[in-house]
This record gives sequence, C-alpha cells and structure tokens, in this order.
Amino acid sequence: MQLVLASASPARLGVLRAAGLSPRVEVSQVDEEALLARLPPAPCEQRVCALALAKAEAVGRRIASAQTAHAAHGDDRAPAVIVGCDSMLWVDNELVGKPGTPEVARQRWTAMAGGTGTLFTGHAVLLVRDGVVERSAVKHAATSVRFANPTARELEAYLASGEPLAVAGAFTLDGLGGWFVEGIDGDPSNVIGISLPLTRRLLAEVGVALTDLWPHRPHRTADNVRDKG
Amino acid sequence: MQLVLASASPARLGVLRAAGLSPRVEVSQVDEEALLARLPPAPCEQRVCALALAKAEAVGRRIASAQTAHAAHGDDRAPAVIVGCDSMLWVDNELVGKPGTPEVARQRWTAMAGGTGTLFTGHAVLLVRDGVVERSAVKHAATSVRFANPTARELEAYLASGEPLAVAGAFTLDGLGGWFVEGIDGDPSNVIGISLPLTRRLLAEVGVALTDLWPHRPHRTADNVRDKG
Repeated sequence: MQLVLASASPARLGVLRAAGLSPRVEVSQVDEEALLARLPPAPCEQRVCALALAKAEAVGRRIASAQTAHAAHGDDRAPAVIVGCDSMLWVDNELVGKPGTPEVARQRWTAMAGGTGTLFTGHAVLLVRDGVVERSAVKHAATSVRFANPTARELEAYLASGEPLAVAGAFTLDGLGGWFVEGIDGDPSNVIGISLPLTRRLLAEVGVALTDLWPHRPHRTADNVRDKG
Repeated sequence: MQLVLASASPARLGVLRAAGLSPRVEVSQVDEEALLARLPPAPCEQRVCALALAKAEAVGRRIASAQTAHAAHGDDRAPAVIVGCDSMLWVDNELVGKPGTPEVARQRWTAMAGGTGTLFTGHAVLLVRDGVVERSAVKHAATSVRFANPTARELEAYLASGEPLAVAGAFTLDGLGGWFVEGIDGDPSNVIGISLPLTRRLLAEVGVALTDLWPHRPHRTADNVRDKG
C-alpha cells in the first residue's frame, strides 16, 4: 500500500512525517480559484471539502491510469491511498486564504487581534486499486483559534518576516505565529493543514489501518520528545 | 540580551527555534524527585511552578556568578533572561510523569483512552543583570487534552516505537502520539512543553520584549508554512 499526499504544502508533509509516515507527494495542479468560482455558494465546510476532493481526484485519476497501463503489460502495481486537503480561515465574517501582501496581512491582523477565528480543513481520502477508485471518504475538521494582541512593534516584525503572507489566515501555529495564538479548541494538526485524528478515521473508512502505513518501528526523533529535564 | 533555556528538553528547544529564537541551553541539574519529595502537598499548578522556578534559579545563580567574576576583571557581561519549565499530566485522578516502561505506558493508555487529561506546564522567567536576579515572573498554563481510542494493534505499535515511554503523560502532540489526540482546549505549545503566549507575557513582566530577542528578519522555514496547494 502506497500513501500519496495530493498537496504541495510543506506544512502538511511535515505533520505526516513527524507522525511517522513517509507519503509520496503528487501535486494536483487543480486551479482552486476557478473551481471555487464554479461552485454554488456554500458553507465553509462544503467549500474546503469540494477543493480537497478535487485535488485527491485529480491525483487519483493519474494513479488509476498508471495502474491500468501497468496491468496491460502484465505488471502488478501496488494499491494507493490518496489524501487531499484544503484549509481556510473563517474570521471577521469572511472566509480568507493567503493575504499575499504585508498590507493585506496587516489589515487581517488588525481585524482579528484579540478575537477568534475558525480554521476549516477539508480532507478527502481515496483508495485506488486495479485502475479504479474503489472507495472514498470526505470530511472536514474545524478548530477554533483565539488570537493574541501583538504590539505594533511585534506585528511589524512578524510582517517583516514574510511568514504570514504565504499562509491561509495570515498566521501559523507551528512557526513565528505561535507567539500570537493564545489557544485553540480542537485539533492542532488541523490548523497546520491536516488533522491526524480525522485522517486516521478516514483511512479506516476506506479500509486502511494506520498500522498498515506505519513503519514497524517508527523512529523517535529528538524533536518530538517532551522531556521534564 | 542573551536568552537561556534551563531545560534539557529537545521538544522545548524545538518549539522556541520554530518560533524564531535561538536560546543557549544550560541544564539545571536539579534533582526533581528530591525537590518534589521536600515540597508540602500542593495542587498541580504549584508543583510545576516550584520545579520550573528551581530549574531557572539554579541556572540563574550560575550566570549571576559568572557576571560578577567578569565584572571583577573589568569586563562587561550581557544581561541574561532565563526560562525554566516543568510539565506534568493530570489524568485519571493522578499527576503523572514519564512512564519509563512499556507496561506502565500501556496501563496509562488503557486508563486514559477516550478520556480527558490536563497538561500543566510551570514557567519561570528570570532577568539576571550585573550579578543579581533583578526581576522574576512565574506562572503556569493548563491545556486540556482529549484522547482517542487507539485499537489494540495501534497501541502496541505505538508502544513499540518507544516514544511514549520517555514523555510526561505517555503521549506527544507533535510526534506519533498526534494520531491519538482528538483535540485540545488551550495552547498546543504548552502541551509540547513551553507555552509561547505565556512565555511572551512573562518576558514582558520582567521588561523584555519578544522583539528584543527575535532576529530582525526571522527566517521562514519550509516546515512552518501552511499552504493551500
């Protein structure tokens, strides 16, 4: 069984690697803006799920074709499980993605400082075997995020770092932005871009156990060991 | 201003580094068990704060002596801000540290699966200048953690990884254990071992701004960028 992450996000890959998986990355090339424009107006959870499914399906079709081509040559090709995700922040009565510029990021922070937002991530998991999508499971997770009030000097230093410009909602939980998140209610990996407990449940729904993907003895790394010393 | 982390924990160092700081590590050598045995019975928050302060003070005394010795030779020595922490999990009506053995870790998980615990981390921040501890601030943060129900096969694979044996509460949030945490209420960095938002407030209480410690342009790393791709 091969695991494929249908996402270019280094943050999602980082979450899966820290949790003991080594997915192959295949980027979907889905045009998100065009797809969103074609969708009828829908709640946040439906939008992130539609985008996650579109990404997983684009990669799934490619893998199914490759399996069929191999079969025509008499070769076996391993079944694959494909995971696609899409994240957006609901804050201040709108659904926001990456700010792109320091000016937009500054506006976002001015609006959200001291307040609360909700990070939605859609997850789609497909099992592709013998050239067909055998099973699929799609769900979202929502995590509420309480933002701190950075001082003007802190906010300018944060904007100057470049980090908030490239991320949905203009903040990270696991980078410099962690100083300015007072707390969350929900799953932190969902905020970073892929919920581990939800992915585990969706894998089970398509018939794949986490232990089918885990190495027999995952390596403990220096970075993920809390120590009382 | 130099920042000193009075902890041997690679997880705490990892949190601070991902958040843009490069502390010097000085381990306190405090005998935690002996110190806890001397403390009168006290609530969780007082115990973790007492241990965090003992660690920060042990390192602070060393740094103060070094500053005094330098001053006697006419040298200037930079002021230092020292951060000490201690973490414990309150679960199933007891305060637990590292399980140490697979047997104890299995018992802990059997008791806590599907339930909720509270991760307490005590934080002590000292400002040491001209050979004296000028200011200090001590507080704890508490984060509630909702545990999943791993299957028997998953639990055995997790125990076999060795990870849960070496960490307070027999789980990590940012490692393999992330699969088995359904969600939290509070600050995730507090669960890993050092709360970023609380540390920011304690630094301010001793007169140190985060921006005094941040590099002028913190580097964005590939691993802490959430991407919608």
